[in-house]
Amino acid sequence: MENFTFFNPTKIEFGTGKEQLIGQHLADHGTKKVLLCYGSERIKREGLFDLVKQNLAEKGIDLVELGGIVSNPVISKVREGIALAREHQVDAILSVGGGSVLDSAKAIAAGVCYAEDVWDLFVGKSGIEAALPLFAILTLAATGSEMNAGAVVTNDETSEKFFISDSVLYPKVSIVNPALMQGVSRDYLVYSASDVIAHLIEAYFTASVHPKLQSRLVESLIVTVIETTESLLDDPADYDARAQFAWAATLALNGLTYSGVAGFNYPNHAIEHSLSALFNVPHGAGLSVVVPAWMKWYFDRNPAKFERFAKNVFGADSGKQGIAALESWFNKIGTPTRLPQLGIKEGELPRIVENVQSNVCIFGIANIYTPEVVTIILKLAL
Amino acid sequence: MENFTFFNPTKIEFGTGKEQLIGQHLADHGTKKVLLCYGSERIKREGLFDLVKQNLAEKGIDLVELGGIVSNPVISKVREGIALAREHQVDAILSVGGGSVLDSAKAIAAGVCYAEDVWDLFVGKSGIEAALPLFAILTLAATGSEMNAGAVVTNDETSEKFFISDSVLYPKVSIVNPALMQGVSRDYLVYSASDVIAHLIEAYFTASVHPKLQSRLVESLIVTVIETTESLLDDPADYDARAQFAWAATLALNGLTYSGVAGFNYPNHAIEHSLSALFNVPHGAGLSVVVPAWMKWYFDRNPAKFERFAKNVFGADSGKQGIAALESWFNKIGTPTRLPQLGIKEGELPRIVENVQSNVCIFGIANIYTPEVVTIILKLAL
Repeated sequence: MENFTFFNPTKIEFGTGKEQLIGQHLADHGTKKVLLCYGSERIKREGLFDLVKQNLAEKGIDLVELGGIVSNPVISKVREGIALAREHQVDAILSVGGGSVLDSAKAIAAGVCYAEDVWDLFVGKSGIEAALPLFAILTLAATGSEMNAGAVVTNDETSEKFFISDSVLYPKVSIVNPALMQGVSRDYLVYSASDVIAHLIEAYFTASVHPKLQSRLVESLIVTVIETTESLLDDPADYDARAQFAWAATLALNGLTYSGVAGFNYPNHAIEHSLSALFNVPHGAGLSVVVPAWMKWYFDRNPAKFERFAKNVFGADSGKQGIAALESWFNKIGTPTRLPQLGIKEGELPRIVENVQSNVCIFGIANIYTPEVVTIILKLAL
Repeated sequence: MENFTFFNPTKIEFGTGKEQLIGQHLADHGTKKVLLCYGSERIKREGLFDLVKQNLAEKGIDLVELGGIVSNPVISKVREGIALAREHQVDAILSVGGGSVLDSAKAIAAGVCYAEDVWDLFVGKSGIEAALPLFAILTLAATGSEMNAGAVVTNDETSEKFFISDSVLYPKVSIVNPALMQGVSRDYLVYSASDVIAHLIEAYFTASVHPKLQSRLVESLIVTVIETTESLLDDPADYDARAQFAWAATLALNGLTYSGVAGFNYPNHAIEHSLSALFNVPHGAGLSVVVPAWMKWYFDRNPAKFERFAKNVFGADSGKQGIAALESWFNKIGTPTRLPQLGIKEGELPRIVENVQSNVCIFGIANIYTPEVVTIILKLAL
């Protein structure tokens, strides 16, 4: 087991009605004026926006709105948010939405405290020194952003989908009410399942040190995601399945499964980020295409772990059967497993391969994921 | 899944050499003078004491010593620590030792900030308003106290073993270096295994709401404890086993396995605390006696969960076989499973039953664990 530091100061308020606590938590942190970030008008239609507005008003907290944040959020919108936050001198950022809204909120929180252009923080031109305090009400469980210090944003001018990560970006409080997720579409539910599983398998398969304890935790979470996704496809109103799915999504990327793990990397994310950046496909849909293809290519590098995965997740006898079982499960729940299902044809491969090169540099795996290797993996996804 | 709040602000520094960071962490929190709590002279013999002393000196931090804290720590020693802390006006408490030292340190940290007698906090005469900042270097993994807000101390005048719990008692930083645990005796290793398993099974079996996700996490941790204990009995120098054991012990009681769980209680701890309080037996040794007896009595109340436990932890076919397998495993590793092995004879039962009554009141389960029921359970442990 590798040396590690575990520190996760985010307070999670989990369960029904917890959104009612947002005003109090903001007030406890001395907030006077908040930038409320959100995506579609769904939160207005469903009444959540008004509830939050009233809740803040009761605590005397002023509100500035930044709506219209899209999936695969873009840096131009982040810049708009930073300008708004500065203009109105807000002292906190509140995200009401899923991972895209929250990641944008994190980038705004850091960007407000940085004098130059925020994209500098994504390309490593500057470190992150400070951020406005950040709060979240989650309406979709997938990215784990509610309890970690990372954020992924796309540069809409350069088609680069990059990330930032710093301990100042942990949300102070994240409210996770599974009941608020009941309106998530069937498509986004299965994309979310794919996203969470991808978070769990990257280190599981690639780490040079992955103790059995951590492997067991990962398998427990994957089995839970599979089971609860199936329950939710049967009955979207199954609160308990929604809750276990949501908590598994949080635990998948809050540091728990990474403690003591070493020498891992994120090849599936590095490749998928290019699909999202170039073709604006949903991140989870891109991942369910990349993961099985990557697994087929990677198999020989860690056959024992694939055998373990097959047995403990799918009760399958061999590592290759485990990969087939996962691909088949993705097909069954209706998330894509082939590039053409995303509308991406073979002719696009060179463009993707080129875009992936900057991602694998950022993830530090350019030596393994050469253009030739990425081409092989993408061809397995055709 | 039940509503919950998850908040655990303790920073864990895990791994070899991490004790070298203690001075820096204390300095980061503005510490000028610290009360260093420890137990036996082992930390002096093994050089840890000098290392810590030098490490603090390098940061200009003064040191006041409180040595001689015993297993099943006592409130008289806590009072001595509070007096010492006040006399020298320390601004932080540092525990160097196992759970007994750390729990004493927590009680001192709270007691210094309370004007009346510290035992008031244990009997609910007053809430805990504040505590001095608390730091730990762990030399034995078992109680989970390094990453939670609880502490258990015995009143040596009244033979009451009671607990306190408050969010101000989370250690700021806990250093968990498995290499520092290599000197733990064979006996204390197996008692620790029993303690960790007891922490994991209380809610697992007794909760009215215990989602499958949490059950899987608990089973993952129990299997890890069993596996690594056996490895360590074979080879006490097996660092990786020591590390996984230690991290499992931390995760067993840091809130993770309790999130979303409801309606649980701690009958085994309620009963064992009386064995420790009256006969000064090691807590883990008492638990390995109580747990199998309690399981036999409790079985009919949750047969499905016992079946699940049997299958997922021991690969056994029936719930009763699972209980037998656990008892047999305790016997195999050499932790006691019967009261006479603790030197406790049948004639002592009435005295234990009487003492247990105050514990079950404090744990809120006096309605279930009547004197008659506790007698039945204890008889199963003869």
